[in-house]
Amino acid sequence: MKTQVAIVGAGPAGLLLAQLLKCAGIESIVVESRSRAYIENRIRAGVIEAGTVDILREAGVADGALKEGIVHEGTALRFEGRTHRLDLMELVGRGITIYPQHKLVADLVSARLGAGDPILFETPVVELSGIDSDAPTITVERNGARETIACRFVVGADGFHGPSRQALPSGDLRIWEQDYPYKWLALMVETPPPSHELIYAAHERGFTLMSMRSPTVSRIYAQVPMNVDAEAWSDDQVWSELDLRLRDGEPVPLREGAITQRSTIHLRSFVAAPMRHGSLFLAGDAAHIVPPTGAKGLNLAAADVAVLGDALKRYFGNGDRSGIDGYSERCLRRVWQVQRFSAWITHALHVSDSPFEQALNLAALRHIVENRHAALSFAENYTGLPLN
Amino acid sequence: MKTQVAIVGAGPAGLLLAQLLKCAGIESIVVESRSRAYIENRIRAGVIEAGTVDILREAGVADGALKEGIVHEGTALRFEGRTHRLDLMELVGRGITIYPQHKLVADLVSARLGAGDPILFETPVVELSGIDSDAPTITVERNGARETIACRFVVGADGFHGPSRQALPSGDLRIWEQDYPYKWLALMVETPPPSHELIYAAHERGFTLMSMRSPTVSRIYAQVPMNVDAEAWSDDQVWSELDLRLRDGEPVPLREGAITQRSTIHLRSFVAAPMRHGSLFLAGDAAHIVPPTGAKGLNLAAADVAVLGDALKRYFGNGDRSGIDGYSERCLRRVWQVQRFSAWITHALHVSDSPFEQALNLAALRHIVENRHAALSFAENYTGLPLN
Repeated sequence: MKTQVAIVGAGPAGLLLAQLLKCAGIESIVVESRSRAYIENRIRAGVIEAGTVDILREAGVADGALKEGIVHEGTALRFEGRTHRLDLMELVGRGITIYPQHKLVADLVSARLGAGDPILFETPVVELSGIDSDAPTITVERNGARETIACRFVVGADGFHGPSRQALPSGDLRIWEQDYPYKWLALMVETPPPSHELIYAAHERGFTLMSMRSPTVSRIYAQVPMNVDAEAWSDDQVWSELDLRLRDGEPVPLREGAITQRSTIHLRSFVAAPMRHGSLFLAGDAAHIVPPTGAKGLNLAAADVAVLGDALKRYFGNGDRSGIDGYSERCLRRVWQVQRFSAWITHALHVSDSPFEQALNLAALRHIVENRHAALSFAENYTGLPLN
Repeated sequence: MKTQVAIVGAGPAGLLLAQLLKCAGIESIVVESRSRAYIENRIRAGVIEAGTVDILREAGVADGALKEGIVHEGTALRFEGRTHRLDLMELVGRGITIYPQHKLVADLVSARLGAGDPILFETPVVELSGIDSDAPTITVERNGARETIACRFVVGADGFHGPSRQALPSGDLRIWEQDYPYKWLALMVETPPPSHELIYAAHERGFTLMSMRSPTVSRIYAQVPMNVDAEAWSDDQVWSELDLRLRDGEPVPLREGAITQRSTIHLRSFVAAPMRHGSLFLAGDAAHIVPPTGAKGLNLAAADVAVLGDALKRYFGNGDRSGIDGYSERCLRRVWQVQRFSAWITHALHVSDSPFEQALNLAALRHIVENRHAALSFAENYTGLPLN
């Protein structure tokens, strides 16, 4: 097989890039080690920045998010028993959209398959070669046989565990990593969200994020001790813990409901640089992981592929190499800003072992709700820095 | 002896409070364990916020700062070999004033003595009693004899090591402490400052702050390894280290000069709460220490006594207790905001052992110089949050 751009991974980054390239008349092949059913049901993030909606619109795949997404014009920070709403729309003229990532993936899959373009599911990459040349190849395993795809560029959008990043020469690759001393119990609950917007609740017993998937389904994340596993707490224990965190002062009206899914999330940051070597580009989780507190993972992936889409259009359009040469640096500038914000909001909302840090965290939250400049800066970072 | 307010400590906090009380017709006695010459020559901070100048003006002691102070309408952050000026005046409509604390102390001493009001120098407090009553007393040692001063209120403005804080019942007192893994070599140098404004320079070899005392005298602070003492480096070693930190990219034009004074500064944060118990108030360093990076120590002391001056005026004026009852909480709100900013700017500018934190620090500095909301928030905190 032969194509212009071989895309490894049918997550949001890979599929959205394929769509952006398609709009520009650039041909691509998408290969994915998992099945279609798997990727369309994999529970992930649910907060989409306004800038990401713009990218989806540009790619012609925003219909689902626009029709079924829940637009939030504000968000709330809760601490010391009070819930403080931040009016994002008033502050920075944009809000956020709640739309589950797996639905977006399903939209992207239908768009691509509907246009007659293939996605090779259950097709793992076994070799990636020639990235120092203008004619790299990827070798995949498909229906028990090996096939080679020749292309001009390979894009590794295969997530943190995918093979693409490993194809960069190790001497060329620099890694930054940070494990946070925080762990979340993630719950899907059959109960209406306690507010029509998100609530980020700091409490001495632990951080709780009340998000949602629909008007009747809550997505709740609760900080738990590092040794607590997904099934460690009974449903009753979960509800009594949530009650202790949410009943102070002005209580959050969360009603009990069936807990239909549980998992735990370790919070960490990861950055690999450069994001390009020769004819191989990395995009999304293959190059960077952010802690989920800022809900930036999906949005950062979308920003990567928007930059990459532009770069490839210029390259294939008129041979202009400046976009592809500048891709890594341009993306990494944003990546580090998002890591900065995500790390900061993560620390500010979680319980720290240090009473001094804990007092600073409270001061940081108070500053946002009491000070206009702090609120503006928070809102701009939270709703997404401009794509530059 | 008898007075309305006994003030322990003739630093900026105690002397400024005495002056504010004097303007309101409230009588005070100031006692100080050190000599006049000592306090008038003790080298301390040199950056005065616009809000602090307002308080000095209200107290009628702003002449020195207004005449001899150097007004800075901007400040600079230097990193990755480039110096980025922030136009504070354009951002928030106010700058800062460079005026050495010991000169301000001398101004305050002359003002008080000139008006015929005493400052009891070389007069240590040996006992502080009755703070749970409306008639506390302090016992001092003066010319080898003990004397008792009876008063309505005692103000402990006697610094971190003074006796006043110890007079609070230990069960009532909560302490927060943070030692930073950073140390500064502080130098007074006979050389013109390299810029007419301050330069905060982050560098992989260590942070350097280029401040000044006059157009011909530089005050330079350089981060040094924790085991480096004030005299450990020869002058030549100091200059070659500074050169390594300042010559990258667009070099900072610092010329060598005679190093006339050296000391080291350990960076730490400290907060004691409450700042009032019964008839005893704490103000300034007696209640809180901030790392010097944000240059907030003196300004925080001035904010404390502005709040306390108002509270005492209301109490002595018409018996209104709300100011004195709210003193601690009102001051501590500001204290924690200033601790937050000081800790943040301290970490952002210093070299971290963690490459991830180091990359976040650089992202934080870039965000300030590239993003309007971040610049506004920085400038507002740097020039001083409004007194609330």
